[in-house]
Amino acid sequence: MLEDFKDKVCRANLDLVRHGLVLFTWGNVSAIDRATGLVVIKPSGVSYDTMKPEDMVVVDLDGNVVEGSLRPSSDTPTHLVLYKAFPEIGGVVHTHSTFATAWAQAGRDIPSLGTTHADYFHDAIPCTRDMKKAEIFGEYEKETGNVIVERFKGMKPMDTPAVLVRNHGPFTWGTDADNAVHNAVVLEEVAKMAFVATTINKAFIGANRDPYRTDSAPSMNEHLIEKHYARKHGPDAYYGQKK
Amino acid sequence: MLEDFKDKVCRANLDLVRHGLVLFTWGNVSAIDRATGLVVIKPSGVSYDTMKPEDMVVVDLDGNVVEGSLRPSSDTPTHLVLYKAFPEIGGVVHTHSTFATAWAQAGRDIPSLGTTHADYFHDAIPCTRDMKKAEIFGEYEKETGNVIVERFKGMKPMDTPAVLVRNHGPFTWGTDADNAVHNAVVLEEVAKMAFVATTINKAFIGANRDPYRTDSAPSMNEHLIEKHYARKHGPDAYYGQKK
Amino acid sequence: MLEDFKDKVCRANLDLVRHGLVLFTWGNVSAIDRATGLVVIKPSGVSYDTMKPEDMVVVDLDGNVVEGSLRPSSDTPTHLVLYKAFPEIGGVVHTHSTFATAWAQAGRDIPSLGTTHADYFHDAIPCTRDMKKAEIFGEYEKETGNVIVERFKGMKPMDTPAVLVRNHGPFTWGTDADNAVHNAVVLEEVAKMAFVATTINKAFIGANRDPYRTDSAPSMNEHLIEKHYARKHGPDAYYGQKK
Amino acid sequence: MLEDFKDKVCRANLDLVRHGLVLFTWGNVSAIDRATGLVVIKPSGVSYDTMKPEDMVVVDLDGNVVEGSLRPSSDTPTHLVLYKAFPEIGGVVHTHSTFATAWAQAGRDIPSLGTTHADYFHDAIPCTRDMKKAEIFGEYEKETGNVIVERFKGMKPMDTPAVLVRNHGPFTWGTDADNAVHNAVVLEEVAKMAFVATTINKAFIGANRDPYRTDSAPSMNEHLIEKHYARKHGPDAYYGQKK
Repeated sequence: MLEDFKDKVCRANLDLVRHGLVLFTWGNVSAIDRATGLVVIKPSGVSYDTMKPEDMVVVDLDGNVVEGSLRPSSDTPTHLVLYKAFPEIGGVVHTHSTFATAWAQAGRDIPSLGTTHADYFHDAIPCTRDMKKAEIFGEYEKETGNVIVERFKGMKPMDTPAVLVRNHGPFTWGTDADNAVHNAVVLEEVAKMAFVATTINKAFIGANRDPYRTDSAPSMNEHLIEKHYARKHGPDAYYGQKK
Repeated sequence: MLEDFKDKVCRANLDLVRHGLVLFTWGNVSAIDRATGLVVIKPSGVSYDTMKPEDMVVVDLDGNVVEGSLRPSSDTPTHLVLYKAFPEIGGVVHTHSTFATAWAQAGRDIPSLGTTHADYFHDAIPCTRDMKKAEIFGEYEKETGNVIVERFKGMKPMDTPAVLVRNHGPFTWGTDADNAVHNAVVLEEVAKMAFVATTINKAFIGANRDPYRTDSAPSMNEHLIEKHYARKHGPDAYYGQKK
Repeated sequence: MLEDFKDKVCRANLDLVRHGLVLFTWGNVSAIDRATGLVVIKPSGVSYDTMKPEDMVVVDLDGNVVEGSLRPSSDTPTHLVLYKAFPEIGGVVHTHSTFATAWAQAGRDIPSLGTTHADYFHDAIPCTRDMKKAEIFGEYEKETGNVIVERFKGMKPMDTPAVLVRNHGPFTWGTDADNAVHNAVVLEEVAKMAFVATTINKAFIGANRDPYRTDSAPSMNEHLIEKHYARKHGPDAYYGQKK
Repeated sequence: MLEDFKDKVCRANLDLVRHGLVLFTWGNVSAIDRATGLVVIKPSGVSYDTMKPEDMVVVDLDGNVVEGSLRPSSDTPTHLVLYKAFPEIGGVVHTHSTFATAWAQAGRDIPSLGTTHADYFHDAIPCTRDMKKAEIFGEYEKETGNVIVERFKGMKPMDTPAVLVRNHGPFTWGTDADNAVHNAVVLEEVAKMAFVATTINKAFIGANRDPYRTDSAPSMNEHLIEKHYARKHGPDAYYGQKK
């Protein structure tokens, strides 16, 4: 069943490797078939070197395995919470990519410092709150999804399709598995640029020798954010070819 | 028409990928035929994997598409402003390369800290001013060109063939498309070195343990700048083979 | 003798190169056959380009060469101390991988900042104390092993299978040579993430603009550490496929 | 003439590319035949893609071209000063490798922070003084050699076969061209590690939370330096195989 989805989800998982976002088995991609409510996800702890489409696991939104002989990713409950809370998304990605994970370890939102960020993410990349002991030792992966959903209260998930789980790492999503992977690649680059930019600013501020500004920029010009986001995603978007 | 230019501009775009300066479709190269005033530029949002010379778009200096079935790069108006203001240039490159973009996000000129910089750029790499709301929501890409031209008032564009658009990223130019790409590669390396050097200086200054100097160097010895720039670009340049 | 071990140890040494953890001959892997108490280890100063299984050297736990025409790695005495003190380990790796070595040069434990760390290492990666003159000019490599063992007093070696030798570099170990190499790869990534995360925190703290916290985090939520370590290594581990 | 030297010098130049130490034509290697006093060096500004052994230029110690149709590297006078002042060296390398150049741009010696450094370099990697206007606009490349020699007064060149020319970049040397390239590769790695280590130390010191030390380490335990240097280079060296 869902052979098309299995092909795409398997290939999307391999794309994570190709883009340098995963070491060993540290990542997973899923996609949902909204017609049936079934989710196709990577199996847990299987090497990318030998992974085949038929290894993908099919689960329902309650986490029951519907097809597949392998265990689904241990992060499956997090994916399912996201699919239930965000009906507009079709694919979810989790990685431990270096720079995005470092921001999660620092426990900070990634501020919107440039148009590279605003081209894809309307807001700062939010970082979730510290999880409580009961959440951690209870249904941990499900609660991980819950703190993400809590953090997105009042936000539109497809406007900023990425989150940092505090002290853990990034989740991204998209219209489908490929789009979620695309957003994971962009997030890592945005996280790296923001690391370099904040480090540069720190170096200059401390030395009090910047002719232009006296503190670090928590975020860029708000109009530039609106413009760049709208240029690619608004009703009058004019980036790329006509659809 | 201009098949030679299309070949060269297409190949120059692919060189950006080869040098690791672009992710996905985040870069564009153009070249101008000064005899006809026509500009050949990369189409918008087309994958580098499948891009062919015949996909290049020909526009006039007013932005009218003269040949080509695809939309030109959304940054085309910026390129055109540069060609009109800087008659000595023949090619323009825009990228979101990591370190140069981070300096743009920090909103700072890249100081001339070493001969690697001075071998190619006579001055600090200038960063443009913050754009105003009316500029951003007006003819944004054209205004982006205008703030670059404003920043170069009193400077010679070919002496320092690079700029950082604040919170956006670098534009470089050159005698032709290849030379503009060459300058984009050098700029990224110079930006990375300057990041590392300023971070090192910050580490030592804070700890008050540098035996040589007590503050960070905003720039190096001015004579060394003159010498290195002249050694490669002055009337008595002696780097490389005789032409 | 021990041809299987030689094959595995040789391949594990080459895996260090494949994972980008060694320059030239700066790394070594060994494995122990607990049945005979014999250790198979890389020869000293031999190029990875031409290294073959039959070049591996067999030594006993007192350091006597039992088989092999080449000198064993100069770090052999350190490996032997570890095998004697930690009976639960089957393989040892030493590298000068960039980020782990930099933490060793900084003379600091790598704090547990994220689940990537806790998935593999129960505690901070410990850094050994400064060695004394008599230790350095005595049986140096053996004493290097001794300061590692001293540092692990009260710790379980397989709970945190890695150490930083101060001003030198990392040693990792595991159930066998492959597992020790795996841990060396993870350690380097954890060291890189911790470098980036602490640098980000420093940038924000200095500027006093963090809405969430006012100091850097020496370590993450302790419950998250327990959970992630147990999820992979505890009696009820549920990561990966059933064994 | 000196065909063997031309082969080796050409291959050593290409090794710089293979090790990622040069962009475009930014590096050069030479070797001296002490029997004849002739130096074989890379031509200036020739692409590494097409460089052949017969392109190498032969010059005498006064800089006269003895054989070759191309101009020698513009840095030739610096190489010649080194060969004349340091009779024990057989090869010289100059690069603009990223991290070593950044330390040169910061104008600082690279402190000896770890055994990776001490395995190859007995002392901190020295940085030369600022050059004077008359030196810069006089025989610049020769004066560059002179400030290196001045900086090594009282030091043994083969004990620390590397230098940083302030605001410029590194020169390394060795017993022959290959050994000089080897030292250039090690220097770049040592420079990168020292960058990361000093940045980590700065992050912790500022936050006043280091349990072990209260300032950054300008250098490691002096005994460890002696030991590691002697282990590889002293009269009783025991690293590697017997010669």
